[in-house]
Amino acid sequence: MQRVKLSEADAQPVLIVGSVGYDDIETPHGKDTRILGGSASYACLASSYFAPTRMVAVVGNDFSEADRRRLDDHGIDTAGLQEDLSGPTFTWSGKYLDDFNDRETLDIQLNVFEKFEPVLPDAQKDSRFVLLGNIHPGLQAHVLDQLVAEDAFVAVDTIDLWITTAKPAFLELLKRVDFLVINDSESELLTGESNIIKAGAALRQLGPDKVVIKKGAHGAYFFYENGLFALPAYPVTELRDPTGAGDTFLGAVMGMLAALNKTDIDSIKQALFYGTAVASLTVEAFSCDRLESGGVETIESRVKELKQMTQL
Amino acid sequence: MQRVKLSEADAQPVLIVGSVGYDDIETPHGKDTRILGGSASYACLASSYFAPTRMVAVVGNDFSEADRRRLDDHGIDTAGLQEDLSGPTFTWSGKYLDDFNDRETLDIQLNVFEKFEPVLPDAQKDSRFVLLGNIHPGLQAHVLDQLVAEDAFVAVDTIDLWITTAKPAFLELLKRVDFLVINDSESELLTGESNIIKAGAALRQLGPDKVVIKKGAHGAYFFYENGLFALPAYPVTELRDPTGAGDTFLGAVMGMLAALNKTDIDSIKQALFYGTAVASLTVEAFSCDRLESGGVETIESRVKELKQMTQL
Repeated sequence: MQRVKLSEADAQPVLIVGSVGYDDIETPHGKDTRILGGSASYACLASSYFAPTRMVAVVGNDFSEADRRRLDDHGIDTAGLQEDLSGPTFTWSGKYLDDFNDRETLDIQLNVFEKFEPVLPDAQKDSRFVLLGNIHPGLQAHVLDQLVAEDAFVAVDTIDLWITTAKPAFLELLKRVDFLVINDSESELLTGESNIIKAGAALRQLGPDKVVIKKGAHGAYFFYENGLFALPAYPVTELRDPTGAGDTFLGAVMGMLAALNKTDIDSIKQALFYGTAVASLTVEAFSCDRLESGGVETIESRVKELKQMTQL
Repeated sequence: MQRVKLSEADAQPVLIVGSVGYDDIETPHGKDTRILGGSASYACLASSYFAPTRMVAVVGNDFSEADRRRLDDHGIDTAGLQEDLSGPTFTWSGKYLDDFNDRETLDIQLNVFEKFEPVLPDAQKDSRFVLLGNIHPGLQAHVLDQLVAEDAFVAVDTIDLWITTAKPAFLELLKRVDFLVINDSESELLTGESNIIKAGAALRQLGPDKVVIKKGAHGAYFFYENGLFALPAYPVTELRDPTGAGDTFLGAVMGMLAALNKTDIDSIKQALFYGTAVASLTVEAFSCDRLESGGVETIESRVKELKQMTQL
């Protein structure tokens, strides 16, 4: 597994909690069933391009050896990946509408995810870069409870489901995190604010010092103390399946920050370019296929293109 | 009238043709009637912050002295502004829906615009920076026919109405222009391409070497030979009335280019930042009010903010 070369090499590991699942996905471009998905799968594969990556998740009795090998091939530490033989792996079935902006959940089977409680291996409790991927906010908090590092940089992602069904737990969690990454519709659902600038300020009031609002094909805004940074999406012409783009984005951003062992504003801005480039791989194919195969050279060339597209 | 100070001062005049009208506008924030509007009004006021500006348009027997003074106060050369005493000025009545993304035309009265034929004063036929604002493409072409400069840099704007009702004339016109500025929905209507990157390439195939696709609150993409440049909108928090934002944007861009007497790619990129900043004034109030009163200092401070928002 080749990593992106960064000038400063004091790479820290990233701990990522989230879901691993099998997806059935239909888009205007086609359909695929029982493909590897889940927030932890995308985020860990993305992070692994930059830093040692620790996965905390659960799979069931049907998780294939081939899929486990995909994680191994990217050097992902699966000591925290529980195998629950009492049932099958989590599954999600979804359908994207014509413009890819809306998706419909056709079916969810929690399966072993229903009883999942993330347990950090002792050797991982000192993690200082922590990504709480999209799962129930109560489980995200449970990961934080197990950390021993005083200065951990904690990033969190979520989806509308948790804002609707577990808002108090999510608001409690937000007081404990440094970096919230959320999409624009979720941001409006949480703050009631449709103006993205006002929403960014409102989200920072909820706890996280740093906030990114993602606008899909329209790029992202990064809000920080007294500042704002905007960047476009990578100009993808062959959009196949947007599933996992957000998880990939944040996985790459946190991987890059861990690789640099930095969390200052300038480093985050740089990492956002890398996150954007890596996410552009994910949307070009179903499942994690293109994310896995994309490679360091493609990532670096896309970051270069993004900079040419934006820098005077 | 104070102009934006630019280091190189070989300012050329800009010739702008378009409509001058009285608008009745309703937005979620309020309603105003009989306010100065029209593509030429917005574009000329915007351009006047940068370069000598020549307006080619028509008004009727009801055009007020106060509104004429607004143009005079910005130093706009109205030698090409015809006064047709046979009827009233063009009027448009429109309503914006909740999210400001959609608008409904409630009424149009062409009035003196119906018989309008743009006539360039002899002294303006040598114009080398020409903005064909939103009017029927046949009238836009009629302006080009009167130009004598061999090396004029011609920019064109349009609306969905002309793409729907006068597509052949607009396609003919596109072969004669250098710079097309169009919004994303119009771009899709014209090319049939919803992917903005593919649409940009398709538009360049139609004639103009340089194309900007505007995405409203999501910024704009600039397409040129072998290149692409993306910039965000200025982060407006008090959106009042988006009417004229596109005309303002292009008016400022062309004013800036004329002021620099340059049309190279780097100059256009710089001008896009200025166009974005000036357009942000227009949307903060009904009619041209904030555009007129905004002033050079506000424009320069917004350009600075936009650069801080985007440059590493």
